[in-house]
Amino acid sequence: MPTEISSHPATLEWIGGVEGKLRMIDQTLLPTEFKHIECETVEQVWEAIKMLRVRGAPAIGVAAAYGVCVGIQTVSGADEAALLGRLDEVCSYLSTSRPTAVNLFWALERMKTFAAGLAGNGVQEISAALLEEAHRVAEEDRQMCRAIGRHGSTLLNDGQGVLTHCNAGGLATSDYGTALAVFFAAAESGKTLHVYADETRPLLQGARLTAWELQQRGIDVTLICDSMAAQVMREGRVQAVVTGADRIAANGDAANKIGTYQVALAAHAHGIPFYVAAPSSTFDLSLASGDQIPIEERDPQEVTHGFGKQTAPEGIQVYNPAFDVTPAKLIKALICEHGVIEPVTPENVADMLKP
Amino acid sequence: MPTEISSHPATLEWIGGVEGKLRMIDQTLLPTEFKHIECETVEQVWEAIKMLRVRGAPAIGVAAAYGVCVGIQTVSGADEAALLGRLDEVCSYLSTSRPTAVNLFWALERMKTFAAGLAGNGVQEISAALLEEAHRVAEEDRQMCRAIGRHGSTLLNDGQGVLTHCNAGGLATSDYGTALAVFFAAAESGKTLHVYADETRPLLQGARLTAWELQQRGIDVTLICDSMAAQVMREGRVQAVVTGADRIAANGDAANKIGTYQVALAAHAHGIPFYVAAPSSTFDLSLASGDQIPIEERDPQEVTHGFGKQTAPEGIQVYNPAFDVTPAKLIKALICEHGVIEPVTPENVADMLKP
Repeated sequence: MPTEISSHPATLEWIGGVEGKLRMIDQTLLPTEFKHIECETVEQVWEAIKMLRVRGAPAIGVAAAYGVCVGIQTVSGADEAALLGRLDEVCSYLSTSRPTAVNLFWALERMKTFAAGLAGNGVQEISAALLEEAHRVAEEDRQMCRAIGRHGSTLLNDGQGVLTHCNAGGLATSDYGTALAVFFAAAESGKTLHVYADETRPLLQGARLTAWELQQRGIDVTLICDSMAAQVMREGRVQAVVTGADRIAANGDAANKIGTYQVALAAHAHGIPFYVAAPSSTFDLSLASGDQIPIEERDPQEVTHGFGKQTAPEGIQVYNPAFDVTPAKLIKALICEHGVIEPVTPENVADMLKP
Repeated sequence: MPTEISSHPATLEWIGGVEGKLRMIDQTLLPTEFKHIECETVEQVWEAIKMLRVRGAPAIGVAAAYGVCVGIQTVSGADEAALLGRLDEVCSYLSTSRPTAVNLFWALERMKTFAAGLAGNGVQEISAALLEEAHRVAEEDRQMCRAIGRHGSTLLNDGQGVLTHCNAGGLATSDYGTALAVFFAAAESGKTLHVYADETRPLLQGARLTAWELQQRGIDVTLICDSMAAQVMREGRVQAVVTGADRIAANGDAANKIGTYQVALAAHAHGIPFYVAAPSSTFDLSLASGDQIPIEERDPQEVTHGFGKQTAPEGIQVYNPAFDVTPAKLIKALICEHGVIEPVTPENVADMLKP
């Protein structure tokens, strides 16, 4: 039976009018505690981004846009120059919260450029227009999620088992995600799915966030360790895999959370289609193939002290790549807000993304 | 340069003569604390097996054999009937420590049968002979490890990267293991290897035990999460995989710790040979194929509460299979104490194992 999967509990939400505040789920407390925080100062927004209370590229962009609106509320009176000065200050400040997050800079730049075009309209009008622009940033993200869900859900059938790795869900966007949007849209169209969620070591985004989100939204979900995916496939429990992506090259090679490539290999060995769902902004056509995507190496402590407790010998060498690249030949289709790219070839990628 | 890889620190060691005690590494404290315990009563041996201070099929067998020797020390004087009565009592008691451990029953039965053949020789002589028999159980295990190491090491080359999953090492035997024996014997023959150890969720035997053992014995080792194995292979860091096995069917299908199958698939996709090292006692020729091996499902808390902390939502469904089966077609060779079975066919398995 078709049911509407709402984006509530909302990852990010603006409360009030121009003199409002930004409410968000504190994701650092999940899955054991569900709590909202309300940011009434730009310092609180900065801290929330810095401490990963909000994470995921699209969600960070939305938080930054609303963060600007929170930050300029300190300017009172009719002094437009003071407002634009404060805007610059707020953007510079917020940009230091997570210096590697591309969407953070993109959103701040967008807000600044927008404000520049409003010069002469006065403090009240500019402030109101900036809030409208932040709402648009959020709304465009929402539309992107819905479109990905709509396109992707056509690839799944009623009664299927599906598997995902890491969290490409609502907690990373202002609506219901990218990879998870496919599951939510399928559910909305009346298809019953059973989702297997890889826990996703080392940081357990699958266990902490994906399992929680699916459970919250009433989707049947089973948590497994990353090492169990192939066994679950071998037992015939899974008929499709859908993951997100952090960066996709012009030939369709897709970088995503470490472990995705291993899942893709297992799916291939079992003849199970492997899909990647991501917004068009994830594609980087300047990269001919995934070989050019640099793989970030992260802190060994994520592996040796993963549960707040030391679980490996003192002084042990660790290799901790944060991402891997799944080659296009293992990907049955790429799903973006414009449609489904299948088969995954450089020509089809270029066609779908042409302006 | 060839160096002798000793079995020290010994997993299990008898201290003293007939009136001696059993010393063992308390594996529950590894890898953060290295401590021996000394069992001077059969209750202490029972507790050590029960609480997994000693684990691994061969090691449990050896602990049980020595446990019998500890237990009969309470009988003083020349009353042989009292000794044999006590022996029965001790064996019954020890058999309740881990009722699913096949090697436990095997070792206790062997000690009882041996004692029965000595009736009439008197308390002193029987006690001394039982200690000799326990030493033989340990020594045969030691010889098995060395033979597996000798055969397996011929399959590896100097300078190679190798990968293993879970712990089939010295901590599970009375010497230096089965899969790890292959690495140790290769090192002894002058080959320098670099070992990648999968952490092995959910119970992290790779991080806690394998990484510790290899580090202790001076083998270059790097710890990775299970989800990183395919990426490590893709980067060309690994030229062979060696794992242990819990049960091997007549056609060579091998059951081992969950995640082994996924590693075998990744190795296959990269053209990397996948080897399984296990004593002949692991083969179960009554099973035609791995499909007949039952897969034990374990407590969801192993996945949701890794090491004391809740990392998944309350009430989440979990699938936690403890083992998987790697089909013979993915196994380049099986290594047992009698030699190398390659290619892995029912005929070659039967040939190697014929009495």
